[in-house]
Amino acid sequence: MNKNNSGFVRTLSLPHPTLQNNTADIDRLTASLKTELETDQIDIDLDLLKEVPDLIRKWDYNVRCTLFKDRKRWLLTGITDPKSTKPITSLAVDLGSTRLAFRLLNLLTGEILAESSCDNPQISIASDILARIHFADQEGGLEKLNTLIIEGFNTTIAQLCQSCNIEPNDIYSIAVAGNTAMTHLFMGLSPRWIIREPYIPVVNSPGIVKASELGLKANPMARVLIFPNIGSYFGGDLIAGILYSGLHKKEDTAILVDVGTNAEVVLGNKHWLIACAGAAGPALEGGVSRMGMTAGPGVIEQIVIDPDTYQFDIKTIGDMPPKGICGSGLIDLAAQLFLSGMIDIRGKLTASTCGSRLKEKDGIKYLVVVPAEASATGADLTISQIDLNSLISSKAAMYTILETITANVGMTPNEIKTFYVAGTFGCFIRPQSAIAIGMLPDLPIESYQPLGNSSLGGATMAITSPEHIDEIYTIRDKITYLELNVNQAFMNLFSAAKFFPHTDPSLFPSVKVPGK
Amino acid sequence: MNKNNSGFVRTLSLPHPTLQNNTADIDRLTASLKTELETDQIDIDLDLLKEVPDLIRKWDYNVRCTLFKDRKRWLLTGITDPKSTKPITSLAVDLGSTRLAFRLLNLLTGEILAESSCDNPQISIASDILARIHFADQEGGLEKLNTLIIEGFNTTIAQLCQSCNIEPNDIYSIAVAGNTAMTHLFMGLSPRWIIREPYIPVVNSPGIVKASELGLKANPMARVLIFPNIGSYFGGDLIAGILYSGLHKKEDTAILVDVGTNAEVVLGNKHWLIACAGAAGPALEGGVSRMGMTAGPGVIEQIVIDPDTYQFDIKTIGDMPPKGICGSGLIDLAAQLFLSGMIDIRGKLTASTCGSRLKEKDGIKYLVVVPAEASATGADLTISQIDLNSLISSKAAMYTILETITANVGMTPNEIKTFYVAGTFGCFIRPQSAIAIGMLPDLPIESYQPLGNSSLGGATMAITSPEHIDEIYTIRDKITYLELNVNQAFMNLFSAAKFFPHTDPSLFPSVKVPGK
Repeated sequence: MNKNNSGFVRTLSLPHPTLQNNTADIDRLTASLKTELETDQIDIDLDLLKEVPDLIRKWDYNVRCTLFKDRKRWLLTGITDPKSTKPITSLAVDLGSTRLAFRLLNLLTGEILAESSCDNPQISIASDILARIHFADQEGGLEKLNTLIIEGFNTTIAQLCQSCNIEPNDIYSIAVAGNTAMTHLFMGLSPRWIIREPYIPVVNSPGIVKASELGLKANPMARVLIFPNIGSYFGGDLIAGILYSGLHKKEDTAILVDVGTNAEVVLGNKHWLIACAGAAGPALEGGVSRMGMTAGPGVIEQIVIDPDTYQFDIKTIGDMPPKGICGSGLIDLAAQLFLSGMIDIRGKLTASTCGSRLKEKDGIKYLVVVPAEASATGADLTISQIDLNSLISSKAAMYTILETITANVGMTPNEIKTFYVAGTFGCFIRPQSAIAIGMLPDLPIESYQPLGNSSLGGATMAITSPEHIDEIYTIRDKITYLELNVNQAFMNLFSAAKFFPHTDPSLFPSVKVPGK
Repeated sequence: MNKNNSGFVRTLSLPHPTLQNNTADIDRLTASLKTELETDQIDIDLDLLKEVPDLIRKWDYNVRCTLFKDRKRWLLTGITDPKSTKPITSLAVDLGSTRLAFRLLNLLTGEILAESSCDNPQISIASDILARIHFADQEGGLEKLNTLIIEGFNTTIAQLCQSCNIEPNDIYSIAVAGNTAMTHLFMGLSPRWIIREPYIPVVNSPGIVKASELGLKANPMARVLIFPNIGSYFGGDLIAGILYSGLHKKEDTAILVDVGTNAEVVLGNKHWLIACAGAAGPALEGGVSRMGMTAGPGVIEQIVIDPDTYQFDIKTIGDMPPKGICGSGLIDLAAQLFLSGMIDIRGKLTASTCGSRLKEKDGIKYLVVVPAEASATGADLTISQIDLNSLISSKAAMYTILETITANVGMTPNEIKTFYVAGTFGCFIRPQSAIAIGMLPDLPIESYQPLGNSSLGGATMAITSPEHIDEIYTIRDKITYLELNVNQAFMNLFSAAKFFPHTDPSLFPSVKVPGK
């Protein structure tokens, strides 16, 4: 707290007015700020303007300025007594469709004061974003969804502030990174055209909005930076992810992948960025198998199958009795089933190796992963042939997207040096399993770098440094978006990828296909 | 009304969205606007953003955009159906301490739709601006003064709109030019430090403010351009006057003078501008003589005295019986008294020529201008020796200021080619009379150009053209403000000017001094 300056907090000693230097209070202040920030554009709201004369005189022309930046324009969001020890804070938010993650920072020191996350309150309307978009079309639907999310923010903001003994008034800036649809619902913009051909958002670059205009309870002058999107299916969360990864500043070409129902991919380096997004199906989010679920206590996160005994060694989150499986666990399971020979290269359950675990119901084969007596639910936890078919489609889509985007710049997936995996899912995915099933390319394990919550990480960077705000728009403007044409060429690649690990095993030299 | 474009109104045909061109609605709109306006910065309020998607689809991607400009930044203030015949309007305002003048324009055609003026409602608190500034220091005083002026605006706006059959909602921009103190009271800023050494305004360049933030009833997106000032005693009304005169774009050096209690002077050309302001005393605003008043019906505007018979030929406004005299009438009166020999070169009433018109009361000589039987008041209209002494000080101050500012650039007042006289007062002043008493330099009469309400003229220019908005800031930044030091040199010049027309009559060759 003995720091006097940071990117967005500047402590100034203004020259006292004299007959020879009798410019106005505000112009005196902005002149100093312009020099300090090397800018020629600083805006101040009328309500703040009114307070300046008395306060700067009270503080004897010493003033701590809190600022924010909107592309070329700087905004003065607050002035405080440099002698005050009250923290000047800022909030970074990952606006997920499922979860919201908040991080409160001391703007002067950069210190994280508190973190919190909660379910997206819009889940009470629909867990699925598509269903929410349809709901928004109903009379009053958009307002309801918008109110839910804004109230969710305000509740969390109040709790975070209480936990740190500060006031919402002490929050001077907020950065929000979310996908395009969530960003629309957050801003109260109709997401109607996002899901209708040709898939048009209301806005790509929302820029800076006053917190009060959005209904957020923070300082009345607080500004909200809303991360820009590239289009309906490539949102601000990805831009935040790129910022966080630093991919846009590296000499070597790297790739960033956010795996979910949609696979969003960015390939590039400091010279160029190319991005695309494609449906990978819900399999990778644990939304497909009957035992699939999002990560949580009792959810299977790792499976090892002994290739000789076919014994399952299962690890769950919190070491609780297993109750389901998450996306990364499903990939582990498929990899282990394949490597142990319990499924074949087409992903079909093999009777000879599955033994008594293999059952059939209504003409559909399924495998008992956890028998009823060992499960938390009291019922068998199973994976069906249909689940496996769905997974193989998802992983093939993922790999085909990677092939397509790399081919577009004359590369192959195997030439990638650094592979960033974004999102919570990326934290848990085991690259060796994803490679074994041919979902991710056969790169050295150390090439894979999980980013954690890169959306929150990018939002944090934006609120703490003006340079990062500039970078956001540099990234956005630099990206060439590749529209994935699901044409014959794509379908051929897709068909070839619908095998474990691939019809061309030479692409996956590290994967030891059983029986070969 | 068949015009489709003007400086601030642009009619666009946007490309329809396709899979190949699927940028967001707002970005599609701003991309077209950026090309149209050759800018890279266009801001749109959230509330307007929300309306765009439905409206542009309804209008089949044809849209009329109403814009405003804030230095480098363009603001979209409204979108309308290009087929609509509803006028898009804008309001120019001269924010005088005594009178407010309003002009409503069709932004597309430039046509003046209506004009109106009214007394400044703050007169109910005090007619004198200094008294208002002291009142603003009282508890609730500033709020009261601010409310009065804003309500005055809103009343006039409603009347103007009604007279043209439009809604306040159809007003998309407002430009306001006033002196520094009035601008502060209009914005709700404390004028406290304006009148206290070293005379510091709250703000010099207020820029653009949302009409709603000021409490003005216009379109919710409407912006208000508030003319910048140079300092406490050189306000936005003068900047508007310079803009209106075009002085800042001329090759030849010209001068602009606004004569009132303060004399504000700008000297310059397209290369440089130098300005100063000084107290000239209230004599020139009709505020000194007991019969003095502001112009209105029955007020004496011209006097001719026969130098042989000493007969007074008096003209009043509206040819009504005389009830008082305004500033320009007073100058006429003094000039005629001097040229007829009724006062001497020191401004003293001369018994031999004044005859029976000369009276004395309480040891003070006075002259009956209109006897009781001919006046509207039923009492003598008189001018006292004290009034004349005051006038001679005022005119000497005015001339000394002109000598000082011209000397500063190595000129003399007599070298000026074009002499703009601003303000209502400037409309009525007769240069030959002002020259006769040595208030204005002895230039050919055609050098004098009355500008009328140049403040309203400048405000009108600002709301009708983006180039003029740029010019405002160019003018403001180009002005060198000369602090008038009332030192010995100034006092020597002032003393020399305290004669009719001057101690050095060679400066006024056209003035025939009686008896010489």
